[in-house]
Amino acid sequence: MGKPLIFITNDDGVGAKGLWNVIEMARRIGRVIVIAPEQTQSGKAHAITMFAPLYLRTVRKEPGLEVYACTGTPVDCVKMAFDHLLKDNLPALTISGINHGSNSAINVIYSGTMAAAIEASFYGRPSIGFSLTDHDEDADFTAAVEWADRITRSILAADIELPLCLNVNIPNIEGSRIKGLRVCRQAKGYWRETFVQRKDPRGKDYFWLTGEFDNAEPDSADTDEWALKHGYISVVPIQIDLTNHAQIPALTQALSVPPGSLE
Amino acid sequence: MGKPLIFITNDDGVGAKGLWNVIEMARRIGRVIVIAPEQTQSGKAHAITMFAPLYLRTVRKEPGLEVYACTGTPVDCVKMAFDHLLKDNLPALTISGINHGSNSAINVIYSGTMAAAIEASFYGRPSIGFSLTDHDEDADFTAAVEWADRITRSILAADIELPLCLNVNIPNIEGSRIKGLRVCRQAKGYWRETFVQRKDPRGKDYFWLTGEFDNAEPDSADTDEWALKHGYISVVPIQIDLTNHAQIPALTQALSVPPGSLE
Repeated sequence: MGKPLIFITNDDGVGAKGLWNVIEMARRIGRVIVIAPEQTQSGKAHAITMFAPLYLRTVRKEPGLEVYACTGTPVDCVKMAFDHLLKDNLPALTISGINHGSNSAINVIYSGTMAAAIEASFYGRPSIGFSLTDHDEDADFTAAVEWADRITRSILAADIELPLCLNVNIPNIEGSRIKGLRVCRQAKGYWRETFVQRKDPRGKDYFWLTGEFDNAEPDSADTDEWALKHGYISVVPIQIDLTNHAQIPALTQALSVPPGSLE
Repeated sequence: MGKPLIFITNDDGVGAKGLWNVIEMARRIGRVIVIAPEQTQSGKAHAITMFAPLYLRTVRKEPGLEVYACTGTPVDCVKMAFDHLLKDNLPALTISGINHGSNSAINVIYSGTMAAAIEASFYGRPSIGFSLTDHDEDADFTAAVEWADRITRSILAADIELPLCLNVNIPNIEGSRIKGLRVCRQAKGYWRETFVQRKDPRGKDYFWLTGEFDNAEPDSADTDEWALKHGYISVVPIQIDLTNHAQIPALTQALSVPPGSLE
């Protein structure tokens, strides 16, 4: 049996340190093909490009490694991989990241990194999004890569029901201080924004979006936020049924109208 | 008691027919404030603008109606409303749409319309995303508006546990042929893309993303896709916990490693 094919993408763009660190890691495990965005796509969530064509640029091609840059979003990169470039040769696993910055809790819905991982899981192969809780361009990925290596090997060897998509966050602390990993759930809570208002040189007001995450359950030890705060790596399995099944009965009642007027 | 304040946004942009149709409808129910994107934001999902400032332009201001255009995404528009413009005067309800095109099934995760509705539900007030299954710029919203009116009034009058966010899709058929509405769940299935490859005038290849939704369960009568195919309006309540709770035990086992090596 040959070495497994691993597909890698990210949302920080093809030049990001976290990407090249995880490429190096993945090459020790398998053959690697990368399609990463040309430019940073942080906060682009599950966006796709509908009103512009996409270009694919070859960045590097050598035995065991091909790297391409795409002008689109992280999800575009995944679609380009699975529905075009690798259509007849699907990868055994997808890695998205390693992201510069946390994607725990509600961040998962704003994150381009996790959107790419989620999209990749739609093709019948496992996917993992890795994020380090450090936004620095020059963040230290040493411990993150070591853990990404272990987790990637475990998932390749495991037999877990598909679709399988993992949201893995690694705390920004020294490797020796990481206590282990915890499989957990997405913490509840929302971002609240403070708009920084300024005047441009022509006198017009403009706004910068800046916010803070407000954890609604800081004491819940089964959440990703708790794990990260307490020195653990958080691993949250992801699914994409957004239906609030519990609300269906109440809604059915609330939306009922006198007989005859609806049906 | 005064008339309720209704906040409206969309992803087709401030000039869209579906937006102005629903504004007219909402004015019959309450006071209306709109922040809509300057330009089309279809397929922008939950994207936020991180690397550019946002501008807010006054489009119209008259008794009972204020319309603003924002240079950002649909989610930016919602944050601008709830964390800035309406911070001290939260609306009773948010409407996103009426979208030109379906947002049923998996479309919910790519949709700017639904991302805006979801984001609005984070502020303790109900939100509804309305979509008509017709992409035409000049689509006929007559029946859609009539149903949006009924549903909006029902939700304003109802007492359903918050957060409450509805994904409402209206089939593109004559009003008299609409059979009623069904509260249902998001159908399973994914998009599969076909990339249209062309050469630009300078000889470089480029790609258009084009795809088709593959419904994995066309016969399940409790899904939104089934409802729409059979002449019903689909109403899916939305939640945002992406945790795949069922996979936690298998993963905990798969990721366990010999004692000592992890903790």
